[in-house]
Amino acid sequence: MYNRVTDAIISELSQIVGAENTLVRPDAMEPYTHDHVTGLRADPEVVVKVRSAAEVAEIFRLAQREKISVTPRGAGYGLSGGAVPVMGGIVLSLERMTRILEIDRENLMVTVEPGVITGDLHRAVEALGLFYPPDPASLDSCTIGGNIAEGAGGPRAVKYGVTADYVCGLEAVLPSGQTISCGGKLVKNVTGYNLAQLLTGSEGTLAIVTKIILRLVPLPKHRIDLFVPYADFESAARTVSAIIAQGIVPTAMEFMEQDSLMAVERLLGRELPFRTAAAFLLFQLDGNHPEALQAEFETVGDLCLQHQAQDVLVAKDTTTRDRLWESRRKIIDALTNESPINHMEDVVVPRSQIPALLKGIHQIAANRQVRIISFGHAGDGNVHVNVLKDDLPTGDWERLVPQVAESIYRLTLSLGGMITGEHGIGVTRRPYLILALGEAQVDVMRRIKSAFDPNNILNPGKIFP
Amino acid sequence: MYNRVTDAIISELSQIVGAENTLVRPDAMEPYTHDHVTGLRADPEVVVKVRSAAEVAEIFRLAQREKISVTPRGAGYGLSGGAVPVMGGIVLSLERMTRILEIDRENLMVTVEPGVITGDLHRAVEALGLFYPPDPASLDSCTIGGNIAEGAGGPRAVKYGVTADYVCGLEAVLPSGQTISCGGKLVKNVTGYNLAQLLTGSEGTLAIVTKIILRLVPLPKHRIDLFVPYADFESAARTVSAIIAQGIVPTAMEFMEQDSLMAVERLLGRELPFRTAAAFLLFQLDGNHPEALQAEFETVGDLCLQHQAQDVLVAKDTTTRDRLWESRRKIIDALTNESPINHMEDVVVPRSQIPALLKGIHQIAANRQVRIISFGHAGDGNVHVNVLKDDLPTGDWERLVPQVAESIYRLTLSLGGMITGEHGIGVTRRPYLILALGEAQVDVMRRIKSAFDPNNILNPGKIFP
Repeated sequence: MYNRVTDAIISELSQIVGAENTLVRPDAMEPYTHDHVTGLRADPEVVVKVRSAAEVAEIFRLAQREKISVTPRGAGYGLSGGAVPVMGGIVLSLERMTRILEIDRENLMVTVEPGVITGDLHRAVEALGLFYPPDPASLDSCTIGGNIAEGAGGPRAVKYGVTADYVCGLEAVLPSGQTISCGGKLVKNVTGYNLAQLLTGSEGTLAIVTKIILRLVPLPKHRIDLFVPYADFESAARTVSAIIAQGIVPTAMEFMEQDSLMAVERLLGRELPFRTAAAFLLFQLDGNHPEALQAEFETVGDLCLQHQAQDVLVAKDTTTRDRLWESRRKIIDALTNESPINHMEDVVVPRSQIPALLKGIHQIAANRQVRIISFGHAGDGNVHVNVLKDDLPTGDWERLVPQVAESIYRLTLSLGGMITGEHGIGVTRRPYLILALGEAQVDVMRRIKSAFDPNNILNPGKIFP
Repeated sequence: MYNRVTDAIISELSQIVGAENTLVRPDAMEPYTHDHVTGLRADPEVVVKVRSAAEVAEIFRLAQREKISVTPRGAGYGLSGGAVPVMGGIVLSLERMTRILEIDRENLMVTVEPGVITGDLHRAVEALGLFYPPDPASLDSCTIGGNIAEGAGGPRAVKYGVTADYVCGLEAVLPSGQTISCGGKLVKNVTGYNLAQLLTGSEGTLAIVTKIILRLVPLPKHRIDLFVPYADFESAARTVSAIIAQGIVPTAMEFMEQDSLMAVERLLGRELPFRTAAAFLLFQLDGNHPEALQAEFETVGDLCLQHQAQDVLVAKDTTTRDRLWESRRKIIDALTNESPINHMEDVVVPRSQIPALLKGIHQIAANRQVRIISFGHAGDGNVHVNVLKDDLPTGDWERLVPQVAESIYRLTLSLGGMITGEHGIGVTRRPYLILALGEAQVDVMRRIKSAFDPNNILNPGKIFP
């Protein structure tokens, strides 16, 4: 289907990006064979590290001429295989495009290259009293370009929204080699179809983004965090509803169940407070006016206690805050510590359906006799569901995973949800796209893909079944 | 290119929607010949008023079979000709689909049919302490479906964003007659391409939306409005920058120049306060905590005075508020009163470029010897530029308008702006789409259009040059 990358092509590529940015040795290419999906690997034939839109355009023209696939890559922290070169060919890495081009304080806009690490962007704008809220868990490793490709979210989505809500302008190179500029430093713009929003979350299948304009908001001056244990999850869920009903939208509302806390305890090798609680909520509140924030905090605290919280632990400084969030932050490491092989789903349901989702997942775990640990975003309905291999034989595991995944998807869809909230379809969820969206909608998406990439050279083998 | 609507087709249509919802008499069809663009009219061959997605699907299948164009229509309050049937054929009106299907307080989501009047939605959710912020000027007449089609904005976009920022789910009928359901009551969702965002602002050219899920926010409990006159526009613009630099994002920041106020005076037949001021800012602030809001208000007031405001008029109750906003609300009527024939542009620039934009527009007015009155959204850079015919002979006017429009567009684009912020391309701005976006981007948009509507039966003659 695709041609092989020949020595002549490698030589041409190294003329475009420089020999030092053209990798062909297997050991040098190893980091580019995978992202953060357990067990998914594919070898590129060549890796090129570009420095500009012009280089991307030249590579596309070469790839079109030679019929070779191009897989774009940020930092490789994706969780659905979007950056894995499943058809071989060229991996096009944006890792050298790391410049923050401009922080425009007057217009509250920042212009960046795609390879900027999300956490670096946070720090750069916060130093000026500005705020870029999206905060995916891998923020100190992942790139803004990857966040755009995947439509990344994070805990602060409850109050502040996701990556897409901040994208105002994109420069992108089409698979044809043409460069387009969509939007700008504009919060209002209806000039033609909204391609900036279409490209966001398109998993690098429509174009390669080479410049990004994001809106910023003023950095909130004050913050309070709460850690709240409960004897049952239903009380925690009722607290969340009661807070929303009071007209309060916290910055973040995260949840864990006891099995998450136990796994973190085993990772850390020490007991954590409230280890006998069944469920935990973590809140973050922020604001500019200390008394307004204090009033909001008191209302939230009261509502927690009215809904049978066992206690309300509060942090107003960094040290206490880090302690409160420790267990939530360590969950992924703890799961790997429990079972090096595990499978993570990323379903999303209307917030009010989280209790029904968790109940159904407990049932699936019981029926399939497998350990499933869930945690996630109580405020926005996005739940990370982790199936652990533990000591299951490999063959059984490989049969089990798709069955469990499909059960979880059917449950999610029956609750008005969708099969991925912030991780993407990528390679791993392709077989289920039609189950989620129906044939007609997937057909339209295929035609959109063809509108951008008629020869299917850009990131093939992703999204579509 | 398209076939004529025959008696047999009219009979078939009236079987689908009922004879009483099938209009063919010219007087009955007259309201459907135009929207709110001055001087743009076209006759439909038949008007059908649908009641369901199933009826829309049947009409599409008939239109495909017979090769007849279909022009969807909300309330006809558009400002770019999107609902005008420039190719004749069928006008498909959504005006009977007026049900608010559900207000889900727990998930902060509302589900509506497209024909719901935006102001009715505001009142329905506000009665429950909830808030749907987008507030286009025609909100008591226009429909949510029309707002989705055009990507409508409004003054509150500064703090709360535009229609697109609230769209979480759409049911839409494709020109093929297939119905798709995109998104849901979900604030996070990356399951395939973001079709809900692509359809929003697509001006009814890709699909007909038949059900809409919008997110809501808690209704702010308190509000303060300020009316602030200045001796020059530059001081007003510096005030806006200073407020943003203080970390304050008001709900709305509107501006007028003196010529707007004078026009309103002539409409009302009485003098307005501060009539000698050169420029005016109108602020709206809101919040839940009275002291926090008061502190914000005091900071804004101080900044106004520090930047040479002539006064700061304040409203904390409805009566005073209505008086403060009177001149801003009456501008459109006042312009029609000045000159029944006029031409409105809707450009948008980065907020900091408004002074340069206005200066350039004054220059264009002087060069072309035409009266141009501008007003709009100081907070988001969206400026409504009104060219008045006054007593210019019709032939001269018709030659002048495209020349002035193109000058305004070139100026706007040179400032990093776009040619329409919230009114759309429609019929009137089609010749300038390539100027704004470039050939390559418009080509991609054409291919997206074909992906949805290969036979070009849905709303032809819009957007594309």
